[in-house]
Amino acid sequence: MQPLWTLRLEQTEVDAATRRADPAAPLAGVPFAIKDNIDLAGHPTTAACPALADTRAKASATAVRLLVEAGAVPVGKTNMDQFATGLVGTRSPYGACHSVASPAHISGGSSSGSAIAVASGLVPLALGTDTAGSGRVPAAFNGIVGVKPTRGLVSTTGVLPACAGVDCVTTLTRTVSAARPALAALTWADPDDPWSRPVPARLPAGIAARMRVVAVPDAPLDLDPEHRTAWAAAVDRLRGLVAHVVPVDITPFLQAATLLYEGPWVAARYAAFGHLLEPDGPHLDPTVRQIVLRGRDIAGPDVFAGLERLATLRRTSEAVWPDVDALLLPVTPGHPRLADVAADPLGVNARLGQFTNFANLLDLCAVAVPAGERPDGLPFGVQFIAPAFADAPLLDLAATWCGEPVSPPPVPPGSTLLAVAGAHLSGLPLNHQLVGGGARLAFRARTAAGYRLYRLPGPGLPRPGLVRTGDGPAGGIAVEVWQVPHQAVGQLLDTLPGPLGLGGITLDDGTTVAGFLAAEHGVRDATDITASGGWRAAQSPDRAPPGLCVRPWASRPSPPPVQSDSADTRTRRWR
Amino acid sequence: MQPLWTLRLEQTEVDAATRRADPAAPLAGVPFAIKDNIDLAGHPTTAACPALADTRAKASATAVRLLVEAGAVPVGKTNMDQFATGLVGTRSPYGACHSVASPAHISGGSSSGSAIAVASGLVPLALGTDTAGSGRVPAAFNGIVGVKPTRGLVSTTGVLPACAGVDCVTTLTRTVSAARPALAALTWADPDDPWSRPVPARLPAGIAARMRVVAVPDAPLDLDPEHRTAWAAAVDRLRGLVAHVVPVDITPFLQAATLLYEGPWVAARYAAFGHLLEPDGPHLDPTVRQIVLRGRDIAGPDVFAGLERLATLRRTSEAVWPDVDALLLPVTPGHPRLADVAADPLGVNARLGQFTNFANLLDLCAVAVPAGERPDGLPFGVQFIAPAFADAPLLDLAATWCGEPVSPPPVPPGSTLLAVAGAHLSGLPLNHQLVGGGARLAFRARTAAGYRLYRLPGPGLPRPGLVRTGDGPAGGIAVEVWQVPHQAVGQLLDTLPGPLGLGGITLDDGTTVAGFLAAEHGVRDATDITASGGWRAAQSPDRAPPGLCVRPWASRPSPPPVQSDSADTRTRRWR
Repeated sequence: MQPLWTLRLEQTEVDAATRRADPAAPLAGVPFAIKDNIDLAGHPTTAACPALADTRAKASATAVRLLVEAGAVPVGKTNMDQFATGLVGTRSPYGACHSVASPAHISGGSSSGSAIAVASGLVPLALGTDTAGSGRVPAAFNGIVGVKPTRGLVSTTGVLPACAGVDCVTTLTRTVSAARPALAALTWADPDDPWSRPVPARLPAGIAARMRVVAVPDAPLDLDPEHRTAWAAAVDRLRGLVAHVVPVDITPFLQAATLLYEGPWVAARYAAFGHLLEPDGPHLDPTVRQIVLRGRDIAGPDVFAGLERLATLRRTSEAVWPDVDALLLPVTPGHPRLADVAADPLGVNARLGQFTNFANLLDLCAVAVPAGERPDGLPFGVQFIAPAFADAPLLDLAATWCGEPVSPPPVPPGSTLLAVAGAHLSGLPLNHQLVGGGARLAFRARTAAGYRLYRLPGPGLPRPGLVRTGDGPAGGIAVEVWQVPHQAVGQLLDTLPGPLGLGGITLDDGTTVAGFLAAEHGVRDATDITASGGWRAAQSPDRAPPGLCVRPWASRPSPPPVQSDSADTRTRRWR
Repeated sequence: MQPLWTLRLEQTEVDAATRRADPAAPLAGVPFAIKDNIDLAGHPTTAACPALADTRAKASATAVRLLVEAGAVPVGKTNMDQFATGLVGTRSPYGACHSVASPAHISGGSSSGSAIAVASGLVPLALGTDTAGSGRVPAAFNGIVGVKPTRGLVSTTGVLPACAGVDCVTTLTRTVSAARPALAALTWADPDDPWSRPVPARLPAGIAARMRVVAVPDAPLDLDPEHRTAWAAAVDRLRGLVAHVVPVDITPFLQAATLLYEGPWVAARYAAFGHLLEPDGPHLDPTVRQIVLRGRDIAGPDVFAGLERLATLRRTSEAVWPDVDALLLPVTPGHPRLADVAADPLGVNARLGQFTNFANLLDLCAVAVPAGERPDGLPFGVQFIAPAFADAPLLDLAATWCGEPVSPPPVPPGSTLLAVAGAHLSGLPLNHQLVGGGARLAFRARTAAGYRLYRLPGPGLPRPGLVRTGDGPAGGIAVEVWQVPHQAVGQLLDTLPGPLGLGGITLDDGTTVAGFLAAEHGVRDATDITASGGWRAAQSPDRAPPGLCVRPWASRPSPPPVQSDSADTRTRRWR
């Protein structure tokens, strides 16, 4: 019997709540479990610290209240790594959990009880939290779906913070389809939560409504052997599922991951619940206590140095996104046994978080999905990761992975699809013409085989010339396909200099959309940049620009730097 | 002779650079001064610490490089409060500056030399920096314009940080018109600056293209007597200049202001340049050293507690913005003498920053403009403040204040102005229909006299009914006027339930635009909410919602909170 509950509600109470639920509500009668760091009115919130069991919450957390308002019925509170500090599921005075697939292997945590309650069929929905990976790791170890939304989309009012401002409330379900109505109910800008953020009315710049280009690491990952086999199979599966799989350098993501426990963020945990760690006693998990008491001695200036380091890594890691929709990674590098954790509680946990710890620090959203089994039969989980507020298209991608139905966003009447290949791409100088005209990024794609790309000669902004010469590369040229209101198409046409025009462009999937093309005679004096594979890669081989920059008059290069004869790296370390 | 320069370039060097400037560039030949915490290639950056004078910068700061690329010509580096830590202009081993209007009164700082160079006519343009108010305070004390852009719009690469992530590069000019081309040249998303942010392609939600509604404090400010007279005159002047002046509670702004020096952010200064404060010597300003060494002993958990406190104040202060475009405040509460500062270096400085310190912490932009003279003849300065990325319309508002030309944004062909009064307002549930259709918020307004507002009965989202009954209040009803593409107007009309329709609405200035109106017979069973003055105020009398929330099925109220019989505030302090 797994110690998965810290509290079960009386069946009469559950039945009464089920009867009270509005049958027209989207989650009418759906029972759900609540991780025990989230308040349920009238019951204690222990965060797996039994000393807190004497206090009953006066009100439910906003997340719980919203699910109840949507018709769902709470059935109990679930066990967890104490104070949500751990990814193992064993750091609890209420007992250690194990994977539903193996009594010898850990359940993962910290949302251990919530994941087991869903995976073992007791409830179709559970709330977890995810700061370092606490919602995704137990999902992966128990073969279910864990959605970690963008930070701030789900209120943390009434959630005991682990690391305030980094914590996320998550859902655990058996399918992506089951998570959708729960997330719709949970998404709300809460005026009482300082970390809450509203959903923007439009997808942010660079986020496509339909995801077709997925990045994977460009170098082998340090995985356990059984995990390695399962991961290779997952990447193979991905290649058959999406239009393009692109290798990228994930080093800055992995570097950011180390900050959460090795950097100053442990001081945030001490600030949040350090007062509960004295005096010591059997109600405290010794590993959690040891980790968090370290936070007391972290110096303030080191926190600001950590914030600066994180800002730098955020900027570096952003270079991945301009040409891809999402990143696929395994959730963990392995699946430890309970005995492994007992032998090395800190080391095993730290290794577990290397692919998850960075997501909240770098302001990303993520969905953990099952990816079959390892050769030894244990469940294997992968995660799709994307920038903040890409939640909706990311859920569609995850649903596609899971073989669940996805309704592609329709092209509304009065608009048309238009492929762009140069200065109109997201973040480039003429993109504002599309955005300003009410256009949206529909999807990233490549052309069919046979196209060549040129840099046109002439004054002003560099412009691309895309030509179907017939002898272009089989892999095509990178384009973005925008959904553009008809009115804006006319405006774009007015701004188009010769030899550019609008014509049909055939895409990687054989469909044809309108797009900017150059007349073949117009590229005679142009530079052939086909080998770069796309305009953005040709512009900045090392890195993509972080965003819009319109300075058309700035055509002259910067002056060469003056050499100093007395360089002093210490006093000049600021940059 | 004021000690305003730390370095003057040779005239031959300046002349050569002037000749090199592209005559077609927007700032061709414009001489500019550089605050001495900003790198100029080949010259030292002292930040008013003479010990740094031996090291020459290898490259110019990005901001300097961009001005030079735009044709401007650097002429020297200017004195400042050491390490940009001060608002007085006296904390410098290079000597104390004074206001151009009075040798007895301080110049303000920390961009003291830059402000004096502009105010005394030596240069038309200078670069400053503004973390606590260092660009605005010396502008106010010398009768010039100081623009503090949104954080991250101007690169800080090559600027010695005071408080990394909070620092802003600013312009000092005699007019708003002179600042415009400089800011256009400076605005650039710098991939090398982790704090850099691109200008969004569209104004963010809630930012109007033309500002007409300005907030002022709803309670008397603690000002020196001469300042009080000048401030009262400025508010009177505002009433004659903009459509609406709205009193608001600025308490959360003032609370956030105290965090910068009384909260943990001093540790950021220690992290940035604490290593330069030992050993002590005459090259260090004793007050600056004393302040910043305190940062060494700030504890990491207290930094995170401060970040949480700031997030809370940001949320609270945001309640001001849904119904106003900008906030007008004096730049300082008084204009101290050099003798006052000498007598109480810390106290006088702390009081100076109460109206400026919060701007960067709360992610606001601000423009300090001259507002005539105090009765004693000293210059008086006020500042217009608005949310992040409202820089362009805020500059227009500042230009209007200064009597400088402003070109109102034209309504482009193919679109029309449409007044909305209810669920389509910014941040409310149907606003996405406007934004999704490519509409932009043109301006905030009120109707002419004679309109009444009703809450219509019926299921689903509450909808407003605006009716010209003729007996409505003289002050009108709050509306937003959107510039909507014709196509989207048709789509909106399709979604409109009876008794709503489109018709002409007369605004506060006598002009008429299209807008949502209710038929008079349709409001017979509706609730008259005219007394609230507007839909948003009627929805949430205490506070505005922070953003979009679409949960049309959630019509039932939340269940009443369960009372706990063992409340323990200590363990429940998380919320």
